[in-house]
Parts: sequence; structure tokens; C-alpha cells
Amino acid sequence: MAPICIALDAMGGDFGPSVVLPAALRVVNEHPELQLILVGDADVLRKHLTDLKAVNHPQFIIHHASQHVSMDESPALALRNKKDSSMRVAINLVKENKAQACVSAGNTGALVATARFVLKTVPGVDRPAILARIPTMNAKPVYILDLGANVDSAPDHLLQFAIMGSVYASAVENIERPSLRILNIGLEDIKGNELVKATAQLLPNYPAINYCGYIEADEVFQGKTDIVICDGFVGNVALKASEGTAKLISNFLKIAFRQNLLTRLSGLLAMAVLRVIKKRMDPARYNGASLLGLKGIVIKSHGGTNVLGFSQAIEEAIIEVKKNVPQRITDLVTKLLASSTETIFS
Amino acid sequence: MAPICIALDAMGGDFGPSVVLPAALRVVNEHPELQLILVGDADVLRKHLTDLKAVNHPQFIIHHASQHVSMDESPALALRNKKDSSMRVAINLVKENKAQACVSAGNTGALVATARFVLKTVPGVDRPAILARIPTMNAKPVYILDLGANVDSAPDHLLQFAIMGSVYASAVENIERPSLRILNIGLEDIKGNELVKATAQLLPNYPAINYCGYIEADEVFQGKTDIVICDGFVGNVALKASEGTAKLISNFLKIAFRQNLLTRLSGLLAMAVLRVIKKRMDPARYNGASLLGLKGIVIKSHGGTNVLGFSQAIEEAIIEVKKNVPQRITDLVTKLLASSTETIFS
Repeated sequence: MAPICIALDAMGGDFGPSVVLPAALRVVNEHPELQLILVGDADVLRKHLTDLKAVNHPQFIIHHASQHVSMDESPALALRNKKDSSMRVAINLVKENKAQACVSAGNTGALVATARFVLKTVPGVDRPAILARIPTMNAKPVYILDLGANVDSAPDHLLQFAIMGSVYASAVENIERPSLRILNIGLEDIKGNELVKATAQLLPNYPAINYCGYIEADEVFQGKTDIVICDGFVGNVALKASEGTAKLISNFLKIAFRQNLLTRLSGLLAMAVLRVIKKRMDPARYNGASLLGLKGIVIKSHGGTNVLGFSQAIEEAIIEVKKNVPQRITDLVTKLLASSTETIFS
Repeated sequence: MAPICIALDAMGGDFGPSVVLPAALRVVNEHPELQLILVGDADVLRKHLTDLKAVNHPQFIIHHASQHVSMDESPALALRNKKDSSMRVAINLVKENKAQACVSAGNTGALVATARFVLKTVPGVDRPAILARIPTMNAKPVYILDLGANVDSAPDHLLQFAIMGSVYASAVENIERPSLRILNIGLEDIKGNELVKATAQLLPNYPAINYCGYIEADEVFQGKTDIVICDGFVGNVALKASEGTAKLISNFLKIAFRQNLLTRLSGLLAMAVLRVIKKRMDPARYNGASLLGLKGIVIKSHGGTNVLGFSQAIEEAIIEVKKNVPQRITDLVTKLLASSTETIFS
């Protein structure tokens, strides 16, 4: 097995090393080929590793970084003033080919800005996009992008998202011609805003993209399509509306089961079932969003995730390294740019 | 009690008279002051009313309309070719002051286009907006607009939504200074698209609006604010993402409880609790979205709603008639336009 080396922003996220390091330990134990570079305050990291009895773990390398980016820091300020942050240094390691990917649970805005500045986008891609998996009623998830790296996207950006999403789904999930739809507020041609309508005109020109029309936000969860593309503002709102609704229902359930002795008893009996649902919907299981379109692999973990969630984000990085996602995106985009006709994509 | 007269599009929605008429009967029985004009194919309506033993009900008037707008009909075609549709005639009755409001479960696009064409918007309002109530973790709901009447809104439109939402919440819910936030993908000033940022610059100039900053889509369900404004494309996506998530969870619950004899038993015991949740989240309870900004009251019912849901939409119309919502919107907008300074709103 070829060795894989991944840099972790060990100080990022709401819980920093107390989540990142146990997750790192969990993942190396399952992947003997894996080397993890733990980037952050060396003293702090060593202390945490001592507590975990892993200070001399052969698969860990500590890489000191003197600063860290806080969760509410402005991306512009982080970029200018935090040149030795754990986030920046982890991305630098990818740039310098010392790591094949990096994973951070830090501030999304700062991560996107820094990754874009340090790694640059692949030729033909203007802006990186955030892609994530979402659970559906089917066994298979749906991939949605962009989830907030971009706002005020133009149709060309959505075309790039479509290419990147298609490459990702076929590379990572081995789907031969992944179906792709544009998120819209209706299915008829006349529905939608200017962006959606112009993108719908554009996509059929690229037979490499298996464009299947519009999809409404409620249908996304029915597993009818492999990839959904949208502007990052819209995608972020959809994702958070979904998270908010799940929390609302969970809150209603808790209150209802606590009502009286009888409901408490029925709650105890239903516990096993509710745990199954909770597991199936667990954001930790779906943690690890990809920043696609960069000359390097950058995985964004949810800031508030737990050990299982951060482990999942590292696993996502391993898959993208193995599948060589950035190179595949570069290849398809290059083909597209080099071709004067559009038929090569079929 | 002053009599109230409301026109119902009796042919609209997925189920037409078989939902609208039982709902009408239910509501008149609770409101002796109410007169309902049932608009649609007179023969069909009479047949349904005979089955309901209500063909001579003193609170019903049948008003014949020879056409009806189908659920997937283009708004432009409906406007041009369906001048005697139940939807159009119901709206005409409002225009002619023969009814104080109308309620339709028909095609949203056609309803918005027809209502706007027939009734016109109040001076100072460019476009009508769809406002609905959404359940939250608090006892009080949140009002959100626009939910899809408009796409590609400008900051001025969002300002108009803010005025209309504020008038609605204070008139209908008696909230003195309802708090209002703009839906965004982060809380910091630098977050958001051009529309959101420009609107955030505009709103503080109007002290009549209790503008409290941004809100993220997951926080909407926490009941932290009274009114949320957004572009109709974004609002529609948020609403449908929320509906889709609720259906996904309900689907997961069903499957999990059906797993085996033990889970079925625990499901039976938990039934009472699950019914409470279902009732609390029931879209029928929240049915009846308002088309605000028109010179008349138009209530849009969900197309697939049931008898309870359509009754709720009629109740919503009654409240808006009693509270005189369009006049209050006109008053505030006129004040705003007449004033050369902006301070009269405090």
C-alpha cells in the first residue's frame, strides 16, 4: 500500500485538539499506511498526546504552528495576520507536497480564502466550491454544491460546479454517469431566477454532464438524483434549514416524551428505534465537506463536530487522495477548455 | 357582528370541491357572521353540496365559473385564456367589492399573476409577496416572506417585504414592535450576497422597522425573531428544504418502527407521543399563506391540503378582513412615501 500523508489543523474547530487528536488516533489505528502531521502548538499537542498515551505514535508527526485562527475571525484578517496559524501551515504542507491533503474544522471563510490563496484553483475553475453528502430516503446519498464558498455566482460558475460534482461522484462513488440537477423553486422551464435559467441553457451543451433538469428542495431528500448544484448562498440556506428542522423535530420529540410517566415509559421503549434514526441522520456520519477546484485536497469538518465526525472527515481526505480527485477535475476541465467543439464530452 | 363575505376558488387545488366544500361547511358552522361565495362549476358544486346535505345552506352562495386553472398551467396562459376560471372570478369578486377576501388552493404562479393583474399592488409596493407562518421551538411562530412570489429581488423589494411583514405581525398578532431579521448565511457584516448586504444598509434608515440584523436558516426555527425577510427564491428553497427534511425523518421513523415485533410494539406505545409531534408540525395547522401588498386580501392554500388545512386558510382570510391588513399596509407605505425625512416611523 502506498503511504498516505495528511496534515490536520489540530487547533481548529470549537474543540481543537481535544477532538482532533482522539479522531487522529482512531483513524491511524485503522489505516497502517497513514501518516498524520498534527499542526498546532507543539506543547499543547504533546500534552494532549501524553494523555492519550500516543506521544510517540509512529504514525504521528507534530508540526509546530504558533498561531491559530479563531472561529469568528474575518477571513481577510486571518489571511493577512495569521501566517503561522495551524490552518495556514497545514495548507502550506499540501502546497509544498509534504502532505497530500489537509483537514480543518476551523472557520469556513478563512479556510476557503486561505486555501484559495495558497493552493490556487485549477486552470479553468474560477472559484472553489464546497461539496457535501446529504442523507436521502434511498440508501445512496446526494451530493450538493456549492454550500457557501461562493455567493452571487454566475452561470459559468454553476457550470464549473457541475463539472466538479460530476467528476467527484464518478471518481469517489464509482457512479458511471451521475445524474445532475439544478436546485430550483419549480420544475417547469419558466420557473426560477436568472441564474438558474441561464445555467439550464448552458448545461445541455456539455454531454459529459448528465444534466436531468431542475429539482425542488424537498425532492433533494428523496434520492432521485446524484448531484445537485446551486449558488452557495442558496445551498447554505437549504442545508441550514434542513439542520434547523431536524433540531426542531428532535426538540419536539424530547418534550413530548418527557410529558408524564406514561410517555417517559414509551420513550424508554422507543429508545432503540430513536437511536437508529439519530444514527442515520447523525451529521457526524456525513461530516467532511470537500473544497473542490483547488490544486490540492482540502477537507472542511463541521466546527462543532465530535471525534466520530472528525474521523469521518479524515476518511474523506484518504478517499480523495486515493481517487486523485484534484487531478481528475483538472483533466476534465482542461479537456473542456482545449476543445473547440463540445462533443468530446460524450 | 359585521358580516364578512369571502370568495372561495372551489375548483382549485389537488382535490377541488371535495376538500374546499367540507372545509367551507366546517368554517361557516363556527362563524355565523360569515358568508361564503363558492366559485366554480355550479352543477358540480351543487352535487357536492347535496352529498354534504348543505345545498341550501343560508351562508353559501354558488357563483358559476365555466373554467378552471390546472395546477401545472403557465401563469401567462392562465391569465390570457382563463378569464372565466374559478380562480379569476373569485379574485374579480374582491376587486368588485362583492367579497372582502378570496382563498384559493390553485396554482401559485397563476394566483400571484392573476391577483396582481386584477387587484393591483398598493401604491409604493412593486410586487406582492407570499408570507407564511412557520412553527418554532417557542410557542410563537415566525413569519417569513417572500416564499416564492418573486425572484431576483432588489433591496427596495426587501424593504417593502420588511414593511409589509412588520404591519402584518403587529396587526394580526398584536406584536408591538415585531423584531425583523434578514435571512443570511452568517451573522457577521461581511457575510452574504449583494442583495443581503445592500438591504442591511437600507433598513436601519426606517425606525418603523425593528431591524435586528441577520439570521441563519437553522436559527429561524428557534423562535428568536418575529419576522424573517428574504428573496422569494431563497425563501422557497428554505421552506421546501424544511418540508423535505421533516418527510425524511418521518420516513426513517416509519421504517425503524416497522423493523420487527419489538419495534412495532414500542411504536404502538409511542403512538400517542408521535401524534402530538405530528400535530405540532402539521402543515395543515400552518396552512394559508398571505399574498401581501395587493389592494385586496388573497390567501393561498397549499394545493395538496386537507379539510382542516383549507379551513385554516379560510380562518386566515377572516382574520385579515377583521384586521384590515391591506389598508394598514397602504397606510404605512403611504406615510413612508409622503415623508421627505425618514423619522416619522419612530
